[in-house]
Amino acid sequence: MDTHLSALTSEVLTRVEGTRLPGAKPQWVGRWEDRCLLRTSEGLREVAVDDVPADLDFAPLIDHTLLKPQAQESEIRKLCDEALQYQFASVCVNPCWVSLGAELLKGSPVRVCTVVGFPLGANTTRIKAEEAREAVALGAQEVDMVLAVGLAKAGNWEAVRRDYRAVREAAAGAVLKVILETCLLTDDEKAPACELAVEEGLDFVKTSTGFSTGGATEADIRLMRRVVGVKAGVKASGGIRSYEDARKMALAGASRLGLSSSIAVVQGGTTSMGGY
Amino acid sequence: MDTHLSALTSEVLTRVEGTRLPGAKPQWVGRWEDRCLLRTSEGLREVAVDDVPADLDFAPLIDHTLLKPQAQESEIRKLCDEALQYQFASVCVNPCWVSLGAELLKGSPVRVCTVVGFPLGANTTRIKAEEAREAVALGAQEVDMVLAVGLAKAGNWEAVRRDYRAVREAAAGAVLKVILETCLLTDDEKAPACELAVEEGLDFVKTSTGFSTGGATEADIRLMRRVVGVKAGVKASGGIRSYEDARKMALAGASRLGLSSSIAVVQGGTTSMGGY
Repeated sequence: MDTHLSALTSEVLTRVEGTRLPGAKPQWVGRWEDRCLLRTSEGLREVAVDDVPADLDFAPLIDHTLLKPQAQESEIRKLCDEALQYQFASVCVNPCWVSLGAELLKGSPVRVCTVVGFPLGANTTRIKAEEAREAVALGAQEVDMVLAVGLAKAGNWEAVRRDYRAVREAAAGAVLKVILETCLLTDDEKAPACELAVEEGLDFVKTSTGFSTGGATEADIRLMRRVVGVKAGVKASGGIRSYEDARKMALAGASRLGLSSSIAVVQGGTTSMGGY
Repeated sequence: MDTHLSALTSEVLTRVEGTRLPGAKPQWVGRWEDRCLLRTSEGLREVAVDDVPADLDFAPLIDHTLLKPQAQESEIRKLCDEALQYQFASVCVNPCWVSLGAELLKGSPVRVCTVVGFPLGANTTRIKAEEAREAVALGAQEVDMVLAVGLAKAGNWEAVRRDYRAVREAAAGAVLKVILETCLLTDDEKAPACELAVEEGLDFVKTSTGFSTGGATEADIRLMRRVVGVKAGVKASGGIRSYEDARKMALAGASRLGLSSSIAVVQGGTTSMGGY
């Protein structure tokens, strides 16, 4: 396999290893340039991007997300049940629900993801770090922090670096993503925000909180992937509501998808090939 | 003076005491039932609500607010300059700007207000308390925390109480407000959220973050004032963009106004009576 494609897809493969393929649809694993990796009932299959089937299973890329402030325990329980059933990558919940998520998903391949400095990113670095530290202690395996957007817009990249570094240290052992809130940034601000993320050892760059003026775009995913190469994941989030949206983001280079409409998306393939 | 009106207006009077009246307009101090207290060039004047002049100065009620995540230092400096010029109650800024605000407003009657658990309120209680503690240490004199909306909607009032109590203790010495995010609550949820705030020694109940689906309404202000009586302030926030909006909220019982359009509001009286 192409070494870039291999590097890019190892994160997904590690997670799906040993799980059953849930249906007849090929599972999307990843893409690098014109090569795609799929998981089928006959094993891994590398195909040219133009030969990718219309109907794919994106479940292993999905952070099944519920961040509404009014969410209640019953909804968090349902979210976790669904994530187990569909084999999503994680559930993404507010910090107050991390303990419950960790309890419900213990021993499963589904991770608990939470958010830090969310959704404005305008907390102090010390509080962001403390929030990340507590989240990991409570059982979060993935942490999505929000960029200090004002610092980035002011070009204060050393302060952005300190913010990343403090949270990276506090979330040691967890997957760490930074949400850029791309709708508020110019391309000239997105690029250094991604470069610094790689330099400081963050695992993913992510587009959007879903609480600002815009969500993921294919252009942003392409830009972010171009900057981070295979050194980090790219998570598309915000406004992805259909199977077609998800497919576009994956083809543009996203290796994780943040979705609230996860089930509609995984069930919404263009043809019905059975399974679920 | 009516003892209720006196109790209700002491917070404003303490702050404006010794300051010059900035223009010819009577300054609004407060209202209790059919009596209003105004500050004029001839001193305090108690009038019937039906006799209140059309053109009033609401500056001492205004938390001059900038919570956009992309705000930069230059904008925070401008916000503070404007607050000093117009004699607003406070500047309300994100936690990362508290130090700067405290430095710029030191020795002035304008306070530094910040937000905690903002805008979702779905952080852990421990992090909310820690964020409040740090904010006060950095110079915040007022702290606007967000209600744990999910707990309130689930009727878990003891957990809401613990959340209030932890932040109240952490923000000792500061004015503490709780943002209910009224657009997400029923009236039956707003009332106990206000009652508990009084019981736990919070200083204000506040309607909205400005980041959800709705802002302050006159009906909510009346409900909140009815529940807290003179034992707490009521802050109207979210969607108040004109002088008329501000006037309606004050007449409905608001004793503080959270505004981004503060200058348009104070300049937007229905007649020009000079001064500014």
